[in-house]
Amino acid sequence: MTGLPHGLLDREACAALDAADRLAPLRGRFLLDDGLIYLDGNSLGALPAATPPRLATVVTEEWGRGLIRSWTAAGWIDAPRRLGDRVAPLVGARPGEVLVADSTSVNLFKLLGAAVQARPGRRVILSHQGNFPADLYVAQGLCELLEGRCELRTVPPAALEAAVDEQVAVLMVTHVDYATGAVADMAGLCAAARRHGALGLWDLSHSTAALPVDLGGCGADLAVGCGYKYLNGGPGAPAFLYVAERLQGTLRSPLRGWMGHAEPFAFEPGHRQAPGVEGFLCGTPPILGMAALEAALDLWAEVDLEAVRAKSMLLGDLLVRLVDERCSGLGLELASPREAARRGSQVALRHADGYRVVRALVDRGVIGDFRAPDIVRLGLAPLYLRHVDVWDAVEALREVLATGAHERPEYAVRAAVT
Amino acid sequence: MTGLPHGLLDREACAALDAADRLAPLRGRFLLDDGLIYLDGNSLGALPAATPPRLATVVTEEWGRGLIRSWTAAGWIDAPRRLGDRVAPLVGARPGEVLVADSTSVNLFKLLGAAVQARPGRRVILSHQGNFPADLYVAQGLCELLEGRCELRTVPPAALEAAVDEQVAVLMVTHVDYATGAVADMAGLCAAARRHGALGLWDLSHSTAALPVDLGGCGADLAVGCGYKYLNGGPGAPAFLYVAERLQGTLRSPLRGWMGHAEPFAFEPGHRQAPGVEGFLCGTPPILGMAALEAALDLWAEVDLEAVRAKSMLLGDLLVRLVDERCSGLGLELASPREAARRGSQVALRHADGYRVVRALVDRGVIGDFRAPDIVRLGLAPLYLRHVDVWDAVEALREVLATGAHERPEYAVRAAVT
Repeated sequence: MTGLPHGLLDREACAALDAADRLAPLRGRFLLDDGLIYLDGNSLGALPAATPPRLATVVTEEWGRGLIRSWTAAGWIDAPRRLGDRVAPLVGARPGEVLVADSTSVNLFKLLGAAVQARPGRRVILSHQGNFPADLYVAQGLCELLEGRCELRTVPPAALEAAVDEQVAVLMVTHVDYATGAVADMAGLCAAARRHGALGLWDLSHSTAALPVDLGGCGADLAVGCGYKYLNGGPGAPAFLYVAERLQGTLRSPLRGWMGHAEPFAFEPGHRQAPGVEGFLCGTPPILGMAALEAALDLWAEVDLEAVRAKSMLLGDLLVRLVDERCSGLGLELASPREAARRGSQVALRHADGYRVVRALVDRGVIGDFRAPDIVRLGLAPLYLRHVDVWDAVEALREVLATGAHERPEYAVRAAVT
Repeated sequence: MTGLPHGLLDREACAALDAADRLAPLRGRFLLDDGLIYLDGNSLGALPAATPPRLATVVTEEWGRGLIRSWTAAGWIDAPRRLGDRVAPLVGARPGEVLVADSTSVNLFKLLGAAVQARPGRRVILSHQGNFPADLYVAQGLCELLEGRCELRTVPPAALEAAVDEQVAVLMVTHVDYATGAVADMAGLCAAARRHGALGLWDLSHSTAALPVDLGGCGADLAVGCGYKYLNGGPGAPAFLYVAERLQGTLRSPLRGWMGHAEPFAFEPGHRQAPGVEGFLCGTPPILGMAALEAALDLWAEVDLEAVRAKSMLLGDLLVRLVDERCSGLGLELASPREAARRGSQVALRHADGYRVVRALVDRGVIGDFRAPDIVRLGLAPLYLRHVDVWDAVEALREVLATGAHERPEYAVRAAVT
């Protein structure tokens, strides 16, 4: 059951889907230029209308007038935990299990380092081939620093469960694949980790606020995630980390700073880790980024994530079907799972000239992105994407490929497409 | 030669110093409430007037309209290096030696980890007792993670030079003491480190933009510093790190991320560290915080740091002399060096009831801060502090102590004073 009409799919049918979309009014809560079709909310979420005034207040009132007093008077000091408690329900965590701080990679290092220290007899960090390279880099850096104390082992995603054994200290999995959007089996892999005494660590960057995640229900141990994708926290927004409550008393963060001390203002020479998830704080929190993310979380607090997921699956099915129906023979191949339930909130299409195709689409006001070697990645952010946008995007894609517009010489220049 | 008049110091004499102050017009470049005497610019710098409109543009135009395209079109991707190149002249570094990224503590971990890896036969991280506790915590976390591969050794500051030996991998010194403001001998300690083959790592949090620093001239190897103190980058602003060019080819950052990869968008499974200081990038840069810091750096680009230092020393000498002349017998003891050349841009006064005194001053519109166990810390940010402010602050201090106002019961409550 896709929810798509069985008959002819045309732009009017898409407009009818928009008319029936209960989430449609949320688009008005974002500042988005008309005429732009934004299929990159999985890389940088759009700007909530509430964010500019919120930031202006934080800057001119809290910083400008409150100055240092705002650390307590404006609640800056509590922001990592306060925002964490608002991310928690989106990922199936409880209050006190999530912290907003630092970048995803830095948080991953904290948790990997803590996990390796917590499993002293085990030397393997197990992950999957095709995992987001940055996550592999973080593990590589840790292993090199530890001079052979641990090693990164990667296996094909399908072999992951069978590869968990008593040598594995931590199983590091990205929940929704950054390229294809394939959803990993969190419950099954958590169970495998548990059976073998390994810790399970999840990267939720492409799942958070895109689909319901149940860290608690799956028995996940650790997780990290990104603030600037579906959460709409802004460019380089602070990231989050999750430490299951049952582990908070035993895990030690390798990145110690004064904010993670039990009494930051006691200025003791020795580190005593704060109880709770706050022990994973390190330096001073980035208040401007936190303020933007908090404004975005206000919006998420109003939204039913199940409804978001339903719309996301419908948008994805629509995109897949339109590509099937209208772009056949144009060199596209679906790289994402065809089944909506196994797919995150994006559709990836392989094309031999993927990079050129993405650039030609951008010139037509359709913003997607390219992921090496050949993936045209189209993100579907249900809070602000319309079904007619999907129609128009596929039409633009068809026009580009049918006319060979992507073969124009200027698209051959290889510049960064983030 | 203090530059202070020899005769009677009264408020009019202070006003005359303001009238002769070439930096006085810079105060107009900050948004500061009248009637507030802000002596905490060494903890959180004041808000530059240019920052709110700059941030508004970055948010609504670059993020809101440019969206993902702004990573290249608005130069976001180059911000860590671009801002680093603007911090460089303030600390005696060359273009390409400084990077703006992450927090001071996270950057310190990167450099300590790199230093320990670069000196495999040596097990000691040498630092000084009374160093900023967070710096010691970072070293402790690294040592614990490395399970005895290295240890943190601290000695009294005066014993530091003699304690450098062939066991020392890295000498970690804070240039200006966070509590007393005492300035360490950078040239002498760098020479000692060099003689013994150790790396010298400097925390410039309380020196950057407070006094000229000559990392290059002193032969410093590594450094970190803070963006939210004298630089005025905003609460939790991104920090910076410095790696001397001669070391960039050999040092490896233990915090690997995609931004530190030689080709971030190649999405290779193995990490190849970017050449140059960019190799010490980790995750995605916090663009909102970067934008605020860049606006503040615009202001610093106009300022002669020698003139700032001269005013800073004069303000400090004025404060010391006024406390001597007007607060004698009131239980205050100078904790900072009396000689201006050995003192950063702050004056620390010990008082048995220091915490209460700071709170009573805050209620009189004089914002300083308290550092355990007994230090009233008064920061002197020359870009926006007037000589009459120093007069008024000392008068408020005298009034509090002479009347016992700090003994009022509400000041006994121990709340965080950042």
